[in-house]
Amino acid sequence: MNICSYTFEEYIERIQCFHGFVAPGVIIGGFMIDLAYQHLPEEGLFDAISETAHCLPDAIQLLTPCTVGNGWLRVINMGRYAMTLYDKYNGKGIRVFLDSAKVESWPEIKSWFFNLKPKKEQDSQLLMKQIKEAGANICSIQQVKIAPRFLKKLHRTGFAICPSCKEAYPLADGEICLGCQGEAPYVVSQIPHNPGTTHEE
Amino acid sequence: MNICSYTFEEYIERIQCFHGFVAPGVIIGGFMIDLAYQHLPEEGLFDAISETAHCLPDAIQLLTPCTVGNGWLRVINMGRYAMTLYDKYNGKGIRVFLDSAKVESWPEIKSWFFNLKPKKEQDSQLLMKQIKEAGANICSIQQVKIAPRFLKKLHRTGFAICPSCKEAYPLADGEICLGCQGEAPYVVSQIPHNPGTTHEE
Repeated sequence: MNICSYTFEEYIERIQCFHGFVAPGVIIGGFMIDLAYQHLPEEGLFDAISETAHCLPDAIQLLTPCTVGNGWLRVINMGRYAMTLYDKYNGKGIRVFLDSAKVESWPEIKSWFFNLKPKKEQDSQLLMKQIKEAGANICSIQQVKIAPRFLKKLHRTGFAICPSCKEAYPLADGEICLGCQGEAPYVVSQIPHNPGTTHEE
Repeated sequence: MNICSYTFEEYIERIQCFHGFVAPGVIIGGFMIDLAYQHLPEEGLFDAISETAHCLPDAIQLLTPCTVGNGWLRVINMGRYAMTLYDKYNGKGIRVFLDSAKVESWPEIKSWFFNLKPKKEQDSQLLMKQIKEAGANICSIQQVKIAPRFLKKLHRTGFAICPSCKEAYPLADGEICLGCQGEAPYVVSQIPHNPGTTHEE
């Protein structure tokens, strides 16, 4: 049983290393991505969309060239445990989703997926056993076509200095940057010092 | 010159492997994170916020335990090249940002950061040289405190089956899931087949 180019055990190790712990969702995500690749052409450049921010983006980042930072993976949070790999030029792709109907046959996976019991009451050994046994059998696939507006690459363009914070920001965001417009999730309590110097000093 | 626990060269290798190419933004991100850790307590659990989706999230995922999928890294896109590492319990943290004023002294970095010339006219060797030479000297730091509402862990809770697509979704999203409410960026063109079977079949 392989997950893309890894054995199951190798993939588990990679999850531990990157994700920090062996989360059921990342393991299942591996089976989902493996299934998607089985239905994609061998050649092509494929971008990814994750429909949840939980676990699945890490499976995608471990098993595909797509990361959040290189822009080939986008998280469009619709609360569904589903991901799509699609040709970045024509938008044709394969969507894989965790199929609620199929999960019915795997009580411990169902219980985990629907949060039916508190975490400490979960039987994690049984859960792992069922996940490994089920593999991609709890998933279904769809052929999809990504809307053209999502195929455009997001470039950083048109920068200005925000008159409020003096940092660079996209001019399209308005007169001042979004942070200074109130979207910053923090208050600045203190500037400890000004580390570093320019090479002219 | 080290970037967290890596030598500069080791970090470059890790970028190549994870990000797919040695992007200037991920290198600079490494210096930013290293600088943040220098100003954080040695002990503690730190979550991360990236204020841009470009490059910086990958530096964070390479150098900290925080990933998008484990929920310890959140991308709150405000278009600024800045990141914060903060204590997940009390919200106290260090914000590091690329300082436009300091970038003035490094013409090739400035040109890259503000997109002043087409990519093919960039002198990538000179850019790399300046990035390595500048290190964290083009950054500044602030002490910040994250707003309490951002400290809450996002759990998957309260699931239902969407009557439209039959997939599980967060009940809080409404009568049908967000995908079926029109947020899906694709059209489903065909269901090729129903791969896999349940273990009862």
